[in-house]
Amino acid sequence: MYPSFRYRETQKEMGSFNGVSSVLLLSWLLVLLLCTEECLSRIPSLLGRPRGRYGRTHRHPSLSPSTLKDFQTLYYDQTLDHFNYRPESYTTFRQKYVVNSKYWNGSNNSSPIFVYIVGEWDLTEGDYTNIVADIAPQYQALLVYIEHRYYGESLPFGSRKEAYRNASNFGYLSIDQALADLAEIITYLRKNYSAEHCPVIVYGGSYAGMLASWFRLKYPHIAMGAWASSAPILDFSDINPRDEYNTIVTKDFREASEDCYNTIKESWAIIDKIGSHPKGLKYLSKKFKTCSRLNTSEDLRDFLCYTFEEAAQYDAPPDYPVNTICNAIDGLPPGTEFLTRIFAGINATLSLGCYNTTPETDASLKMDPWTWQACTELMGSNGQSTNVTMFPQNYRPYISADQCMSLFGIPERPHWLVTEFGGQDIKLILKRFGSNIIFSNGLRDPYSVGGVLEDISDSIVAIKTTQGSHCLDMYSLSPNDPDWLASQKKKILHIIEGWMKEYHAVWT
Amino acid sequence: MYPSFRYRETQKEMGSFNGVSSVLLLSWLLVLLLCTEECLSRIPSLLGRPRGRYGRTHRHPSLSPSTLKDFQTLYYDQTLDHFNYRPESYTTFRQKYVVNSKYWNGSNNSSPIFVYIVGEWDLTEGDYTNIVADIAPQYQALLVYIEHRYYGESLPFGSRKEAYRNASNFGYLSIDQALADLAEIITYLRKNYSAEHCPVIVYGGSYAGMLASWFRLKYPHIAMGAWASSAPILDFSDINPRDEYNTIVTKDFREASEDCYNTIKESWAIIDKIGSHPKGLKYLSKKFKTCSRLNTSEDLRDFLCYTFEEAAQYDAPPDYPVNTICNAIDGLPPGTEFLTRIFAGINATLSLGCYNTTPETDASLKMDPWTWQACTELMGSNGQSTNVTMFPQNYRPYISADQCMSLFGIPERPHWLVTEFGGQDIKLILKRFGSNIIFSNGLRDPYSVGGVLEDISDSIVAIKTTQGSHCLDMYSLSPNDPDWLASQKKKILHIIEGWMKEYHAVWT
Repeated sequence: MYPSFRYRETQKEMGSFNGVSSVLLLSWLLVLLLCTEECLSRIPSLLGRPRGRYGRTHRHPSLSPSTLKDFQTLYYDQTLDHFNYRPESYTTFRQKYVVNSKYWNGSNNSSPIFVYIVGEWDLTEGDYTNIVADIAPQYQALLVYIEHRYYGESLPFGSRKEAYRNASNFGYLSIDQALADLAEIITYLRKNYSAEHCPVIVYGGSYAGMLASWFRLKYPHIAMGAWASSAPILDFSDINPRDEYNTIVTKDFREASEDCYNTIKESWAIIDKIGSHPKGLKYLSKKFKTCSRLNTSEDLRDFLCYTFEEAAQYDAPPDYPVNTICNAIDGLPPGTEFLTRIFAGINATLSLGCYNTTPETDASLKMDPWTWQACTELMGSNGQSTNVTMFPQNYRPYISADQCMSLFGIPERPHWLVTEFGGQDIKLILKRFGSNIIFSNGLRDPYSVGGVLEDISDSIVAIKTTQGSHCLDMYSLSPNDPDWLASQKKKILHIIEGWMKEYHAVWT
Repeated sequence: MYPSFRYRETQKEMGSFNGVSSVLLLSWLLVLLLCTEECLSRIPSLLGRPRGRYGRTHRHPSLSPSTLKDFQTLYYDQTLDHFNYRPESYTTFRQKYVVNSKYWNGSNNSSPIFVYIVGEWDLTEGDYTNIVADIAPQYQALLVYIEHRYYGESLPFGSRKEAYRNASNFGYLSIDQALADLAEIITYLRKNYSAEHCPVIVYGGSYAGMLASWFRLKYPHIAMGAWASSAPILDFSDINPRDEYNTIVTKDFREASEDCYNTIKESWAIIDKIGSHPKGLKYLSKKFKTCSRLNTSEDLRDFLCYTFEEAAQYDAPPDYPVNTICNAIDGLPPGTEFLTRIFAGINATLSLGCYNTTPETDASLKMDPWTWQACTELMGSNGQSTNVTMFPQNYRPYISADQCMSLFGIPERPHWLVTEFGGQDIKLILKRFGSNIIFSNGLRDPYSVGGVLEDISDSIVAIKTTQGSHCLDMYSLSPNDPDWLASQKKKILHIIEGWMKEYHAVWT
């Protein structure tokens, strides 16, 4: 069963909370609840990209109760801080992980351990199924799913409220700590299952894919291979020119229709012009069916930008949201107003009674671990629109350094990740160092600009398709997969199977 | 000029402070002051080995004032905690480093940067000269020396007293933080010298050698090669059986003389027997010329054990302290008492007016960053003597977990280093992962048991000599070097030169 897209439903459900006073916080919690698939359910805010507000999710094959019972939820007493020895650092918290040992053949056969890395969302049943998990019976593998600290139930300080209370408590949320968490749990599991000599393969998508590749590089003695799907590990300020993300979004729309691209590109000035009129915001609110009256035309612009970005990022079969939008924009009779066309595009893909264009409040951003991560490590430079894209000149990033400082009181450390994991030269470095990493990308995904798109060495390889979108290749093989997608998935499985064969040849 | 050993002088100078009330603290400070050579000046307490109390140093070629002025002392504003984002972690401290750019040919030629990693001692002029620094003129290299956090002048919290005040302040002293310090400073220097494409080679001895090899593994994008001299990276509890260190000390003595070995082995019971008599301690104090009256016979045993261990670790030409001890023990007429022989051995190598056998106080241990490191990360299991060694059955380790808990109030995390850097399987892992590391060892050095003694791959290689001792190969080439030593040094330089050639072939 192929997971069809529910691109509209999240916005629909968020819309239904519109009358509630704490609408944004609730929306955000709802998005978290819905974010259950293998890959990102919402656009990560890396580099200031939108997130959360227009979160989306995929429909998963439902697991039967008898299948679900094979997945055991467990908790590991995780060390709060792995890298310093202040007395507070010894504090532990319960980190959630899930194990399925139904197919596990014990350590004798050196059966593999497949570790699915959960990114910035709750670990739920929706994560259980993916193309790697699907080969567990064939390889008698142990399936492991590890939740990320500060997400879901894996909360230091006992509760969400305490964990997110302030920068002192949030401070232990960092990529290095998250990687060390994985190292500790996997080491513990290998011992616990007498599986010290069993091959471990880690995998994940988007941010979790970045974690997978970095884990292989930093802990090669723990994971013998990593698959990073749609992982923009090169997407930092010193590596890619800014605005590359929006360049790809623009390309996707332009490929769908040059007219559509032009309509969007020209709409921003019209919106700004109307918005500056005394009754302009009232007019725009009505025109775009906003759930509440617009306070600024920027809020409308942000909503439209985010919707277009998300459509491109998840531009996947069978719906192809970019085409849906452009078909609606182009499909109106000649002479139709630009804004009428734009609204038709939005309405075609989201199809809601009204549209929530209210920005997230500071109160809700302050309680968001992903905002914390964006503000400390992942921000890089913010995308600035240029003439080469269809986005407005005064495009507003998801969050700014000033806003971060005001939310959390700490500055970002934008260069640390490049120092820690490598910047411009990392591809050249990896030619001679490291092995067994798959970087897979779909080139319609705007994040592919930060991805590794060419083979680096015999065993650090790039798999890509021009038609693919964000993390699409992680879903179970389906008879409905287009050929190019089925082929990408099979290539990935073939390489992983090759690692296991090589491992067995050497170690057993 | 070959640096001859001054094995006796440290003890002599420490002895001269005997009348001072704060003798131990002062001794310790003195040892720190004397610890200026390339390699360890005192036995590191890894795995509970002795340290500090019987510290020793090498005689260095004095540098002329005109040479010294080429070495510029600088300070980097280092981040207190690289791995978490609590507001306190953003605090900086001044980390000392030294640069010699006299030979540096700028970045055009891709001249190399040689980074000497300073271990658990003050960075001083004594560190400036070594076989890698010696080839700087030939390769137009930039010479860099980086002091370790919490040692020398590189003190967080503004002073030694504050840095060492308690576990909260000491807590930021960890290996991961020290490696990240190196990453930051080297990245800064590459940028500052427009040397982003210049090859960086890191090197160091003993603990600093461990740091060098780990740095290459964790930060391959920053250092393209590492030389780890006498670095016991395999010397952790899950890898080597305990007591291996003392097995090598025993072998060294046994090779010098079977009689000497037997005399030492049988002396412990005699010491214990005499010590248990009412006037026994007075007798032993006189017999062994202790500076103050022995409180327990264990203190004498510890002093003897440490002296034998250090003699083996630094059993180097031209003095060969193990031979010095055994020649004195064996050289007395037949029928001479065992303890008279033992004292003659000690006196022959140390030659002091009196011997300081008083154990370090808790107050002095609490102010020692190396004790902190031993108590948190580096302790592993403590050596326990067995019948295969010449050491007493009830051999006392340098420090115990209980003592650590009482000193600092925190438990050790003995498994973290194995999780972080690899345990039993690291050699097999490195066959397929990583490149460009030299592990050099002298097999008379008891720490060689924890060293990498066989080639792992084409470019992760082991260089060893049966006659060498701890870090001996780091000193400048000298016409007085025995052939085996000169050959070991030349092999190491040849490999480093090969890395640079390969780098230039690929990058320029």
